[in-house]
Amino acid sequence: MVKTTKVYLKDEDMPRQWYNLAADIPGGLQPPLGPDGKPIGPDALAPVFPMNLIEQEVSTERWIDIPEEILQILSRWRSTPLHRAYALEERLGTPARIYYKNESVSPAGSHKPNTAIAQAWYNKQFGINRLTTETGAGQWGSALAYATSLLGMECKVFMVRISFDQKPFRKLMMQAWGATCIPSPSTETEAGRQILAAHPDTSGSLGIAISEAVEAAVSDPSGGTRYSLGSVLNHVMLHQTIIGLETKKQLALFGETKPDVVIGCVGGGSNFAGLAFPFVYDKINGSDIEIIGVEPTSCPTMTRAPYGYDHGDTARMTPLMAMHSLGHDFIPPPIHAGGLRYHGVAPLISQAILDDLVAPRAIHQTECYEAAVTFARTEGIIVAPETSHAVAAAIQEANKAREEGKEISIVFNLSGHGLMDLVGYEKYFNGELTDYALPEEEIARSIKTISNYPKPNIVTK
Amino acid sequence: MVKTTKVYLKDEDMPRQWYNLAADIPGGLQPPLGPDGKPIGPDALAPVFPMNLIEQEVSTERWIDIPEEILQILSRWRSTPLHRAYALEERLGTPARIYYKNESVSPAGSHKPNTAIAQAWYNKQFGINRLTTETGAGQWGSALAYATSLLGMECKVFMVRISFDQKPFRKLMMQAWGATCIPSPSTETEAGRQILAAHPDTSGSLGIAISEAVEAAVSDPSGGTRYSLGSVLNHVMLHQTIIGLETKKQLALFGETKPDVVIGCVGGGSNFAGLAFPFVYDKINGSDIEIIGVEPTSCPTMTRAPYGYDHGDTARMTPLMAMHSLGHDFIPPPIHAGGLRYHGVAPLISQAILDDLVAPRAIHQTECYEAAVTFARTEGIIVAPETSHAVAAAIQEANKAREEGKEISIVFNLSGHGLMDLVGYEKYFNGELTDYALPEEEIARSIKTISNYPKPNIVTK
Repeated sequence: MVKTTKVYLKDEDMPRQWYNLAADIPGGLQPPLGPDGKPIGPDALAPVFPMNLIEQEVSTERWIDIPEEILQILSRWRSTPLHRAYALEERLGTPARIYYKNESVSPAGSHKPNTAIAQAWYNKQFGINRLTTETGAGQWGSALAYATSLLGMECKVFMVRISFDQKPFRKLMMQAWGATCIPSPSTETEAGRQILAAHPDTSGSLGIAISEAVEAAVSDPSGGTRYSLGSVLNHVMLHQTIIGLETKKQLALFGETKPDVVIGCVGGGSNFAGLAFPFVYDKINGSDIEIIGVEPTSCPTMTRAPYGYDHGDTARMTPLMAMHSLGHDFIPPPIHAGGLRYHGVAPLISQAILDDLVAPRAIHQTECYEAAVTFARTEGIIVAPETSHAVAAAIQEANKAREEGKEISIVFNLSGHGLMDLVGYEKYFNGELTDYALPEEEIARSIKTISNYPKPNIVTK
Repeated sequence: MVKTTKVYLKDEDMPRQWYNLAADIPGGLQPPLGPDGKPIGPDALAPVFPMNLIEQEVSTERWIDIPEEILQILSRWRSTPLHRAYALEERLGTPARIYYKNESVSPAGSHKPNTAIAQAWYNKQFGINRLTTETGAGQWGSALAYATSLLGMECKVFMVRISFDQKPFRKLMMQAWGATCIPSPSTETEAGRQILAAHPDTSGSLGIAISEAVEAAVSDPSGGTRYSLGSVLNHVMLHQTIIGLETKKQLALFGETKPDVVIGCVGGGSNFAGLAFPFVYDKINGSDIEIIGVEPTSCPTMTRAPYGYDHGDTARMTPLMAMHSLGHDFIPPPIHAGGLRYHGVAPLISQAILDDLVAPRAIHQTECYEAAVTFARTEGIIVAPETSHAVAAAIQEANKAREEGKEISIVFNLSGHGLMDLVGYEKYFNGELTDYALPEEEIARSIKTISNYPKPNIVTK
């Protein structure tokens, strides 16, 4: 008899509500602040986001209904499979049972469409027909291009120039879905023109691209354009929780009552939150689960950055958010996991770390690629550079379980495939990868940047 | 209530046997011939393939058991989803119900692993630890690299030089799975060295790469190497029939008793055969089904090439096979659908055409890309250039159904995604695609090439 290696959910068992951690986070959430240092109300965000998404952003309802039309579109590829990694377990000789949630099966190749579809749909409901956004490695830009294509909306993506030049296929994906993708900084925005004047040869950054995308949205005189962000914000985390809610039901189909360890990689934090937050809820309610967020040592927001108020973008157009941040002016080293090169981390995740619900961990680039190659040659899936961080942590935990002789269950989020990002694998095989660890001066600089802003009203680390 | 857009099969409903059309093909199959023009026995193939696969190649058993260990590996991604294309139907305004079988969800991104896993497993059972093969666009080479990786075998891929240079990511995929990929013609084989001496600047061809891969297998003094082919041969078609066998059960889950039209693109023919042969069986047994094989106008083996005996490779190392062939020395125009640039077509498909069971159709490259973009912007999946031919024919049939007011059901094989092959899309958007139609002289040349070999003992077209 063939062993079950993966399970799906029946359509009737699909989650019908998203889980909102803001309802349960013990320390509560610090409000976003405006330029005057005072909490901003929903109206201040209205030029940037549609009001229905702003309501989700500030909601503290625990469960929020998923509109049927969104479920209908998600059903094109969801539920995603939950796999048991028998081959990897055997290779490692571990008594641990390893599971992975495979978000790479979406048409855009990652978890990003979960929120792209939802955001596009809410914008359309609100009468918006055009979205702007930024993208680094390209997973988010591709996902929003996919979503707007299905919903008949326009989409403009500002792509960090170095990625735009190095990854021409990402631009072509967006083009196939009818979106416009231009390199950032561009001459189309004031923010872009200023950067270009000061640094004509800049390779761009996510922070700059966010500034441009926000400006392009708010400056549309027709009022029919809004901005869409693929991570960090509460409503983005919310939309991604379908991942963890499916996973809970799928683990039960495998006969697991609960996982012992839950793992996701963290840039802004959306794929991690998507898998982890439903388990954070269980942990708040007494379940014994270790929840690990994994970041690159080169961009250690969770493990080394100070916690405080900072902007989400380089040009300081966004409100101040309370989070772990390396400073809005931080430019991360050029690791291949472009999606993890962000100076901040979602406020909800930051708070969960402060509340000891999430254990952060940083891993070097080389160990991540080594893990990714082991995974490719056992489980057969070539993962994205970002995802390789989750794989590496899962292998660390499985090895620890072997050393301790513990039959634990581990589940991690396979957030995306790496078929568009194979250059890092080549460098790994050629021995050309660099491991970066941020010098202490950089952390000191982060602390200085953040000290310019109000302090959150909680005890920080 | 959410509409069902895709269905899977439960593990216990998975097909347990492959279907062998050789048992039922009305006209029978012409035997392969050796250099002396006489039918060859299984022993003549023994240096090239393991005997267990040779037995499958010549079998006329209707149903052949799928070994449990192969099913176990296939279960990592199978069943693949069968989707209902509601969004495409709406865009076309057709009364037709359109379904597509999504083979792009395999880790290698196409249907090719179905036979790669089977071939690697049978070789390993036979004591072989190393496989050689050729690849054009790279789908097959990637699939065999994936399969050998999972089974702990070595793999060497000769990749047509023009693709090797234009698609560096394909080589990196194979490398991630531990295979060696070198450009063909190479200096590693006598066949390669001869071609290079005569044509130092050649961009290579599938026929040349096959010659090299066969030579590399048979010349291994250890005897531990065999050759693996990703299409054309009977046992390859056999392994792919799991596609159509799943599809039949999945159509029933959608409430369809039978499809009216079945469509697949045809290069060597494996993805087409995989979907179509189980329906050809129904057609032989009286079911009213139109079965359409789609090829590029630039490489019209089924629609215009003569039927006769020819070699499968340029250097004439393979036995003579009875098939539609443009001549083993034919070099197809450089269309983007590299997997459809083969001079011949599977003997089983050739015979099915002669028996009026399969209706061939040729479509221009531009129409195919236009169809692929329509598909991407409705169903959301960016298909491979090869697959775009099936999409184009499905749209032709759906439009015809609209004109005739017929509520028919159409199913096509989405054989692979196009994420590694986006350059053709860029050319399409830039208006730089070329439509090739083969001049009559080329057909005359094909007839001349084939006239050098014995004539099959049947009435040819």
